[in-house]
Amino acid sequence: MSTSGREFFRTRTVGEALTGFRPARRTPAEPVPLSHALHRVPAAPVTAPHPLPGFARSTVDGYAVRAADTYGVSEALPGYLTLAGTVLMGAEPEVAVGPGTAAAMPTGGVLPAGADAVVMVEYTQEAMPGTIEVVRPAAPGDGVVRADEDAAAGAELVPAGRPLRAQDLGMLAAAGLTSVSVHARPRVTIFSTGDEVVPPATSQLRPGQVRDATAAALAAMVADAGGEPVPGGIVPDDPAALAAALRAALATSDLIVVSAGSSVGARDETAGVVAGLGPPGIWCHGLAVHPGKPTLLAEASGVPLIGLPGNPRSALVIFRLLGVPLVRLVGGCTQPPPEPVRRARLARDLPSATGRLDVVQVQLRDGLAAPVFGLSALLSVLTAADGYLTVPEEATGLDAGTEVEVTLYR
Amino acid sequence: MSTSGREFFRTRTVGEALTGFRPARRTPAEPVPLSHALHRVPAAPVTAPHPLPGFARSTVDGYAVRAADTYGVSEALPGYLTLAGTVLMGAEPEVAVGPGTAAAMPTGGVLPAGADAVVMVEYTQEAMPGTIEVVRPAAPGDGVVRADEDAAAGAELVPAGRPLRAQDLGMLAAAGLTSVSVHARPRVTIFSTGDEVVPPATSQLRPGQVRDATAAALAAMVADAGGEPVPGGIVPDDPAALAAALRAALATSDLIVVSAGSSVGARDETAGVVAGLGPPGIWCHGLAVHPGKPTLLAEASGVPLIGLPGNPRSALVIFRLLGVPLVRLVGGCTQPPPEPVRRARLARDLPSATGRLDVVQVQLRDGLAAPVFGLSALLSVLTAADGYLTVPEEATGLDAGTEVEVTLYR
Repeated sequence: MSTSGREFFRTRTVGEALTGFRPARRTPAEPVPLSHALHRVPAAPVTAPHPLPGFARSTVDGYAVRAADTYGVSEALPGYLTLAGTVLMGAEPEVAVGPGTAAAMPTGGVLPAGADAVVMVEYTQEAMPGTIEVVRPAAPGDGVVRADEDAAAGAELVPAGRPLRAQDLGMLAAAGLTSVSVHARPRVTIFSTGDEVVPPATSQLRPGQVRDATAAALAAMVADAGGEPVPGGIVPDDPAALAAALRAALATSDLIVVSAGSSVGARDETAGVVAGLGPPGIWCHGLAVHPGKPTLLAEASGVPLIGLPGNPRSALVIFRLLGVPLVRLVGGCTQPPPEPVRRARLARDLPSATGRLDVVQVQLRDGLAAPVFGLSALLSVLTAADGYLTVPEEATGLDAGTEVEVTLYR
Repeated sequence: MSTSGREFFRTRTVGEALTGFRPARRTPAEPVPLSHALHRVPAAPVTAPHPLPGFARSTVDGYAVRAADTYGVSEALPGYLTLAGTVLMGAEPEVAVGPGTAAAMPTGGVLPAGADAVVMVEYTQEAMPGTIEVVRPAAPGDGVVRADEDAAAGAELVPAGRPLRAQDLGMLAAAGLTSVSVHARPRVTIFSTGDEVVPPATSQLRPGQVRDATAAALAAMVADAGGEPVPGGIVPDDPAALAAALRAALATSDLIVVSAGSSVGARDETAGVVAGLGPPGIWCHGLAVHPGKPTLLAEASGVPLIGLPGNPRSALVIFRLLGVPLVRLVGGCTQPPPEPVRRARLARDLPSATGRLDVVQVQLRDGLAAPVFGLSALLSVLTAADGYLTVPEEATGLDAGTEVEVTLYR
């Protein structure tokens, strides 16, 4: 057995992969009701069909007035206005405000004709029935929201490409937009390969068998990234079977993920099968990263494909680094939501080989990041971790006490 | 009209509310399949039913050996071992390793009887058919994962109270646990009140009417916090109608949210109705926070209730501060997922009144946090913001350049 089977013929850095592997595929737009639109990605900017709130509106409980009628008033020298009537909530005012008059009004009421400000009730009192005393002057616009102050007609309410947040849905509801055009969720077909891999529901394992841990975790990450995970199942270490499975998935997927068999032979077979799917083919085979070197990025028939390492932990590390951004890209997300990151100090020296990005799992306690060590094969390293940090390609390691940025899991 | 209607009879700080208002209600446990368990909250710790991976497993491609047979070997002085056979993936080895022998094996294969290490293929070559040459010594355990190295039988795989993450689902799948006992999603009934409030689907507004923006945004925040939003609809400014709606909701809710009418009268009515629902009743009415002072926290018949301010923006600010933690509490979440926060420098001076917590919406650009100003009534202030910062109760304001912590929206 020679070592040539371990050679990767097109090795790239993670940075090169993130900037250079940019498949053109985007999911089409589809309408969704507002109640299902949280975190969905608008396919186009959404604009206000009319001004919001749509009418000049009081922001305080008090009296609608002509501001000029209050100039110069004070506690010592109050002004007196005749109460012309009362504005009711949710209704057009039946009263107008002329010189020397005022109308009682609730927060949120329509500013009556003639008025240009609302004096807070705290700065007034009823001097006698039908007359109020005003002890503070108001400027035009005080106590009032303009008819188009929340949004002018045609103003952008939400941008394209940024997943909708809670307040965005509120704004769309305010504008009467109960449906929004969003990118369809990318369908991400997830395959596991390996003669030793059996479904999680297998209650009794035969010697040498392992349950498929990767597919469940990948499906969760796909969903979190806004995709729709499609279970592809477990494919044996047989190039013909893998080729048939992948070809079938090309027609129904926006992205294909294969966690490759972990043996040298299985890895080589995956690359060979992917290369045979058609142009443009393999973009990179081998990534300068640890763990996760045997990563494969490819595209065939307009469908991007990621080949992940066979070890569950390596597979999940790589999918987080490269797969999640790909799901977002294909799903039209140009402004990914912010990740929870924390500055911390490294609890101990961290050795690292130059020329590769090291992804190190850490526990975070009291501002200290303590690496969780363990073999690539161990999933427990990931479940024990609060997050991860990366040691750049050019570093030979990081000293204890170095300030690092930890990306937290959620 | 006197100002006495604006008095709040039991004002608290946000800190007091977070630590002091701790309703005992918890949702019951229910089983969910792993495919629906992402972000769900385990009701009890989940332990490994058997050791994982369950067998001593090779982590490299190479040869299973007795480590003692490789002591002292080097490039200059290789050791020679007789090839006893080959281990196949996913199957019990049909070969054993005795003194002076080795078995070829793939990554992930079962370590055969007699062997205690695996030498990487890179440090070997086939000297002649049936004999391999080893040029590096192996220590016992090299190239091998122990049978219980990922988890011992009975070891905790995931803790209670922490929402399940992608890798946690992977670990449960590896252990064959395809269903997990989690807290039921808290049912959060959301009411909007106000004679001026109409459903978002209302295409033509009459003067003075506004569409219900708050309920859609609250439902999104409830879902993000792990709750199940239940639409309660819009209740007019009528104490009897509100009392009837709330009483009916007590039987079907784990938490009730009422965005109160925004006028003084409507606010007072909400408090009166809530006080009449039964013991223990109102815990706080009035919060030392801006925006959001007219907040109400209560409990009746074992159901916690939040009364939110009438302004959509104030309502959403308060629900994020107090409602989201309550949803998590009732849903059994003791380790909330990390929020995306960033350190930034304040772009300008920020005035603030002492004695209240100020919640300031900001845009974040190049490490600078620029406040987005605007009236409490404006939802556009929230949609324009990237996140928020808080100015503590004791501060009179913050100077430009002060380092602040911004919590980002997602």
